[in-house]
Amino acid sequence: MSGTTQSRQLSLNLFIYPGGHHEAAWRHPDSVPERALDIRYYQALAQQAEAARLDAIFFADSPSLADHIRYGSRYRFEPVTWLSAVAAVTDRIGLIGTASTSYYEPYNLARLFATLDHLSGGRAGWNIVTTSAEGAAANFNLSQHPDAHARYQRADEFVRVVSALWDSWEDDALVVDKHSGIFAEDARVHAIGHEGAHFRVRGAFNLPRSPQGRPVYVQAGSSEEGRDFAARHAEAIFTAHQTLESAHAFSQDLRKRATAAGRDAAQIRILPGICPYIGSTAAEARQHAEALNELIQPEYSLAQLRNLLGVDLGGYQLDAAFPLEALDFDAPQSTSSRFRVIVDIVEREQPTLRQLIQKLAGARGHWTPSGTPDQIADLIQQWFEAGAADGFNVMPPWFPTGFDLFVDEVVPLLQARGLFRREYTGRTLREHYGLERPVSQFAEAVAEVF
Amino acid sequence: MSGTTQSRQLSLNLFIYPGGHHEAAWRHPDSVPERALDIRYYQALAQQAEAARLDAIFFADSPSLADHIRYGSRYRFEPVTWLSAVAAVTDRIGLIGTASTSYYEPYNLARLFATLDHLSGGRAGWNIVTTSAEGAAANFNLSQHPDAHARYQRADEFVRVVSALWDSWEDDALVVDKHSGIFAEDARVHAIGHEGAHFRVRGAFNLPRSPQGRPVYVQAGSSEEGRDFAARHAEAIFTAHQTLESAHAFSQDLRKRATAAGRDAAQIRILPGICPYIGSTAAEARQHAEALNELIQPEYSLAQLRNLLGVDLGGYQLDAAFPLEALDFDAPQSTSSRFRVIVDIVEREQPTLRQLIQKLAGARGHWTPSGTPDQIADLIQQWFEAGAADGFNVMPPWFPTGFDLFVDEVVPLLQARGLFRREYTGRTLREHYGLERPVSQFAEAVAEVF
Repeated sequence: MSGTTQSRQLSLNLFIYPGGHHEAAWRHPDSVPERALDIRYYQALAQQAEAARLDAIFFADSPSLADHIRYGSRYRFEPVTWLSAVAAVTDRIGLIGTASTSYYEPYNLARLFATLDHLSGGRAGWNIVTTSAEGAAANFNLSQHPDAHARYQRADEFVRVVSALWDSWEDDALVVDKHSGIFAEDARVHAIGHEGAHFRVRGAFNLPRSPQGRPVYVQAGSSEEGRDFAARHAEAIFTAHQTLESAHAFSQDLRKRATAAGRDAAQIRILPGICPYIGSTAAEARQHAEALNELIQPEYSLAQLRNLLGVDLGGYQLDAAFPLEALDFDAPQSTSSRFRVIVDIVEREQPTLRQLIQKLAGARGHWTPSGTPDQIADLIQQWFEAGAADGFNVMPPWFPTGFDLFVDEVVPLLQARGLFRREYTGRTLREHYGLERPVSQFAEAVAEVF
Repeated sequence: MSGTTQSRQLSLNLFIYPGGHHEAAWRHPDSVPERALDIRYYQALAQQAEAARLDAIFFADSPSLADHIRYGSRYRFEPVTWLSAVAAVTDRIGLIGTASTSYYEPYNLARLFATLDHLSGGRAGWNIVTTSAEGAAANFNLSQHPDAHARYQRADEFVRVVSALWDSWEDDALVVDKHSGIFAEDARVHAIGHEGAHFRVRGAFNLPRSPQGRPVYVQAGSSEEGRDFAARHAEAIFTAHQTLESAHAFSQDLRKRATAAGRDAAQIRILPGICPYIGSTAAEARQHAEALNELIQPEYSLAQLRNLLGVDLGGYQLDAAFPLEALDFDAPQSTSSRFRVIVDIVEREQPTLRQLIQKLAGARGHWTPSGTPDQIADLIQQWFEAGAADGFNVMPPWFPTGFDLFVDEVVPLLQARGLFRREYTGRTLREHYGLERPVSQFAEAVAEVF
């Protein structure tokens, strides 16, 4: 991909986690945790991201309550509803919400995202997750959390069902002719008649096709099965890497799998997470990180680590070497990409348990570089030009001033270097990302017949 | 209830059906059917309703595509998402969305409405439906639509589950103390541990308690089972009556059942539908109705009638007496309140088939009075003062000018007569309706222990 800098466009999403991505961010002097349920707080962040011409904002989700709410802002508003209220006060920025294929019915989920796409004028993205949180199953009639393989099998069928629903009204099905009294050309509205292992859905969908045809398909699983799933379906991929080399290898692997799956690899945006600490000097940037690390509560961090690794390290010394021997390489978590990222950090950096906790506290395994605005812009440019990334999910370590530093100091540098847009050229999220608008599968079928 | 006019407050909702409530409304010269998927159209209607100090706007819903989309605006955006975008541009008006207990998981539905309640500052209402549309089942893995009894049994358990979820964070569970690092008092966040015939939901919910404690529970079923369900759960009841006597009997019956169920009957708002034709003279008002009736397409109307009655009357003469003998009093539809309303109309008015179609086209069985603003205000006052209604769901026959007539000509008369507010006195939908904010069932349990 080198040498194509002028035509390639960097993508930047703002990933919003209420207080910020450092787990102690809500305790930062500038943070406003009492506004974590105030929609105006998120509307203002989205407007700020839009003023900086970012591609999208992004909300994570899980249909359960996390452990250890005592020490952290761990609740979850429903992201599509939240994004709809953000859509109403913005014009251009993309709106990516997470929703689970394991715990939604496809017809309901299809309605939520198609409605968001309609009301936002084509700005919706669906971050497709299978839900790794074990607690979710117990909220949905299940005695056991389905394993990753079962979840991905359901996810695959789920995506085929919702794609067909979103395609079921051809683009020109609406007529709306007062004179003849014909509202819709019913021959262009198709029952999907899906009958599969997990779902039977007759359709048709109950909404006309949305501005983007389908919301943008976003995905974040980087396990083997996650990569295959992404290669088949994802248009934007959110991934965690600590080094350019790891991100580059991931990107190469993903594009190879996508090509093998019959897709155009250029139609995939690979967007690693970046949680940047920015200061007027490198030392000041590091101080930002250290100040947040001092607000960490180890009891909370160890619980987070238990979720990521599947083992409880509560009995180990915080200031001794990380106990690699305590890890369970057969735990269900061991197949996750985050597990691998952590093992890589331990092997590469040989941290103490406390140092690892501090490293993860920044962004739970995502890249947390620190430096001056120029240094951060250099790193972004380097990853982008090396083909390790098509852009980034920006995960400010704390809000709101941690994000101010990025949009006020780093974005103008990226613009000055010709890497990032100064004005939006498109209206939809697909246009921001340079993705084609998919043709309805039913329209294609008709085209083949004639 | 007579003699209490001064303290009783009339409630008025705006029921929004894209083109209007007459089935041919989209063909009205003033209607803008090309804007039926434009959120700004609905935002403007909500702002107009708010300027007139109405209690709420209201969206119906069904998770399936209706028949006969050829002749009518029959698609359905997802109402909670839609209302969130309306919430963002309004401050006071209530936001009632319909969602089905038959085709949602309780945890997902609880999240949608709690999120709407949070982002709107306490203006959410949930219209609880069990979904009568037979087509829905085939979109949700079922080979057969569950019968009304099975649907109400599930609905009853569903409401208990979501109520417990909404209560699971006590009101004072959030601490958010940066200094101590304590975010939430976890002893005040409760797993609900529900194990029932239809659902097993462990909880806790993943959001703090919403401004209203719980969204307002709205319900519309008026069958025997529907009435019992409403008596147990509903706080606002939407109902269809053609005469004051029928509405009065319904209201008396409902309050008696609510009292028997151990509830305070004063904490229920009974709101019949009204689809008013308004003119500067009674003749002009009737002309509005006739002009719309001329735009009816009988093929479409007969399909609607088949849905309501369960029989196809397509073979009968439009201008002969309505074929009462063709009705199937054993059809599943025969237990519905709308079936009874239609039989009552036929017995009382002895219409031709065409006349019945025209009568139903107005608002599918709801009351469609016509008259001058004074005459409409008189009727509203009469029903209200007789205790037949606590207010109305206003269903304009067409939008937007059909609604303009109501807010510009009728609302000021109701205000001048002291029946309707000139300014909002509350901020939440519960406050508009005069409903108490429910105490969390978990807080009560604690109170009993100490």
